[in-house]
Amino acid sequence: YTIAALPGDGIGPEIMESGLTLLETIGKKFQHEFNVTVYPFGGAGIDETGDPLPPQTIKGCSEADAILLAAIGGPKWEKAEKTPEDGLLQLRKTLGLFSNIRPIAVSDSIAHLSPLKTERVKGTDFIVVRELTGGLYFGQPKHWNDEEATDTLFYKKSEIDRIVRQAFDIAMTRSKKLTSVDKANVLASSKLWRKTVNEIATEYPEVTVDHLYVDAASMKIIQNPTAFDVIVTENMFGDILSDEASVITGSLGMLPSGSHAVSGPSLYEPIHGSAPDIAGKNSANPMSMILSVAMMLRQSFQLHEEADALEKAASEVMDAGFLTADLGGTTTTTAFTEQVKAILE
Amino acid sequence: YTIAALPGDGIGPEIMESGLTLLETIGKKFQHEFNVTVYPFGGAGIDETGDPLPPQTIKGCSEADAILLAAIGGPKWEKAEKTPEDGLLQLRKTLGLFSNIRPIAVSDSIAHLSPLKTERVKGTDFIVVRELTGGLYFGQPKHWNDEEATDTLFYKKSEIDRIVRQAFDIAMTRSKKLTSVDKANVLASSKLWRKTVNEIATEYPEVTVDHLYVDAASMKIIQNPTAFDVIVTENMFGDILSDEASVITGSLGMLPSGSHAVSGPSLYEPIHGSAPDIAGKNSANPMSMILSVAMMLRQSFQLHEEADALEKAASEVMDAGFLTADLGGTTTTTAFTEQVKAILE
Ligand SMILES: CC(C)[C@H](C(=O)O)[C@@H](O)C(=O)O
Ligand SMILES: CC(C)[C@H](C(=O)O)[C@@H](O)C(=O)O
Repeated sequence: YTIAALPGDGIGPEIMESGLTLLETIGKKFQHEFNVTVYPFGGAGIDETGDPLPPQTIKGCSEADAILLAAIGGPKWEKAEKTPEDGLLQLRKTLGLFSNIRPIAVSDSIAHLSPLKTERVKGTDFIVVRELTGGLYFGQPKHWNDEEATDTLFYKKSEIDRIVRQAFDIAMTRSKKLTSVDKANVLASSKLWRKTVNEIATEYPEVTVDHLYVDAASMKIIQNPTAFDVIVTENMFGDILSDEASVITGSLGMLPSGSHAVSGPSLYEPIHGSAPDIAGKNSANPMSMILSVAMMLRQSFQLHEEADALEKAASEVMDAGFLTADLGGTTTTTAFTEQVKAILE
Repeated sequence: YTIAALPGDGIGPEIMESGLTLLETIGKKFQHEFNVTVYPFGGAGIDETGDPLPPQTIKGCSEADAILLAAIGGPKWEKAEKTPEDGLLQLRKTLGLFSNIRPIAVSDSIAHLSPLKTERVKGTDFIVVRELTGGLYFGQPKHWNDEEATDTLFYKKSEIDRIVRQAFDIAMTRSKKLTSVDKANVLASSKLWRKTVNEIATEYPEVTVDHLYVDAASMKIIQNPTAFDVIVTENMFGDILSDEASVITGSLGMLPSGSHAVSGPSLYEPIHGSAPDIAGKNSANPMSMILSVAMMLRQSFQLHEEADALEKAASEVMDAGFLTADLGGTTTTTAFTEQVKAILE
C-alpha cells in the first residue's frame, strides 16, 4: 500500500505524526507494508518550493493508492500569490476528487459536548455528501478588479449526476433517506440539480427523497439534526452546511472526511483547520487524523479489521479519560498517541 | 402615513390581520391616521391576476410611505411560470431594497426555548445586515437547460460599498464591532468585498472589524453567538446565515426584519415563511408580524413611543402566559391579538 502523506501547516505535522505512528503500529500488528512518502504541500510547499502544490507532490499523490492530508493554511501565507488554499483546490481538481463525504454522528456519550441541548442532538447520525470540483469554486469567468467582481456557478448535468448517484448509493447502505439541498426557488443551477435528483430517484425506488432549500437546511441542522440520514448538495452549500453540521457534534477535533474520484486515489483528512494558534504546542487532538487513517484503511484498502482495531483503541483511550485540551483535558498529542499505540500492541 | 399591506399566502392573511388590527388600535390611541391599502402579492397575486407582482401592487408599494409584507409561497404555486418568490425578488429589485436588517436577540426569559444549550445562547444580541439586490440572486447570465446550468455572482464595488457603510453605521450605534463574512479564500467577489470593507474601515476608526469565512461563520453562530455584534454579508451567504441565526433564538415566530432602499419606502416582514401546513387554523403566532409593525413605526415613521407601547403590550401578553402553539401554548392568533389590543386600549 503506497500512501502519500501531506502534513501541511499549523498543527498538521503534529497530528500527521500521530496518524503515521499508529499506521505503522497497525502495519506491524497485522503484517502489512505501508509505504508512506511525505510531500510538501500548502504553506509548507510554499516555504520549501515557492508552490503550495509542487510538481513532485502532484506526482506522488497521483501515483499513490491513497492520500493522507493533515491541515493547511495560516496567516503567514494569506497574501501569497498562490495560497495554500489554491493548492488544495488545484489538488482536488487535478485528481478529480468530486465527492467529499463527511459522517456526522453524536453518540450518547459525547452528546453533552454539543452546543445543542443534549436531548435534541442525541442520536444524530448522518452523512454529508458534498460536490467538490464544480460550482462557484471553479466556474469561469472568475475575476475581480477595483470596480467589480464576478464568480460563476456552473454545473454540467453529468457532474450533478455522478455526485447524486453516489449519495443514493450511500443512502441504500443506510436508512434509505436522502435529503437534497438546493436553492431551486432562486438559482438556475439548483433547478437543474433538483430535476436531476428527481430523475435519478426513479432508479432508486426504495429511497425516500426530499428537497430542502439551503436556508431551511441551515435551520433544520440545528432544530432537528436526528431527522437526517444522507444529505447531498453542491460545493459551496456543502462547504457551509458540512461545517455547520460538524460543530453540532461538539467535537470538531474528532471528525474525519474522505474525498473520492471516479478512479485513482482517495484523499482522507480531518475536517478541522490548521489551528495556527496552538501549533507546535503538542496539544492538538489527533483523533480526527487517527479516524481519517481508519477511514482510509477501510475504504481504500478494505482493511476492516485493522480499521476497527484502530478506532476501538482510540476510543478506549478517550473513555479512560485521556482528553486533549479541546475536550477540557490535559493530555498531549504524543501522550494520547502513545496510549493508543500501547493498546494496539 | 400611507401603508401598502401585502398579506400574501398561507398564514400571511391571518397574521397581517393581527398586525393591522393593532396598527389601527395604535392609531386611535395616539391619534394618527394610517391609510392602509391591501394589495395582491405572491400566490394570492397569481390567483387574482396571474402575476405574483401585479402592476397595481408595484405602483401601490412605490407610492407608499412603508410596506408591510406577511408571507408568501406554498406548494400550490411551485410550478408557476412566475412563482411567488420571483415576485418577491422583483419587488426587492424594483424598489431597490438593497439592505435587509435582522435583529437576533435572546433574552434570558426565552433562552430556554433555544435549541442551543441555555448558558451558551443567553445574552445573544446581534444584527445581520444582508445585501439583498445583488450577487447570485440577480447576476447574469443565469440560465439552464438539460445539459448544464449557470448562475452568476456579480457585484459592483458601489453595491458592496453602500451595504458595508450601512453596517458600519449600525455598528456605531451599538458595540462598535463589525464582522464581515465572505469566502475570500475562494471567491473573486469576496476578495473585492474584503478589500472594500478594509477601505471603509479606515473611515470608522472606532469600529473593530474582523473577517470570517462563511464556513467558519456558520460554525461560530452556533458555538459562540454572544461574540457577535453586527454581521455584514452578501445576499446568498446572508440568506443562509440569517436563517441559521434566527433558529438559535428558539422563537422563529417572533422575529421581524426590515429592508431599506437608498430612497423610497422600506419593507417590514416576519422572517418566517407562509407555513401552509397551519394556514387557516387561527393558530399562527402573530408576534413577528406585530414586531414588524413596531419596527415600521419606529424606523419609517419615527413613532418611538407608539412602537414601544406595541412591543410592551405584546410582551406583557406573552408574559401572562398567552402562548401560541409554536411556543407550546393553545392561544389562537385572534385571541392573542385581542389581548394585546385590550392592553393598548
Ligand atoms: C480551505 C477551503 C478552500 C476549503 C473549502 O472551502 O473547500 C475548506 O473550507 C474545506 O471545506 O475543505
Ligand atoms: C423566498 C426566498 C426567495 C427568499 C430569499 O432567498 O431571499 C427568502 O428565503 C428570504 O430570506 O427572504
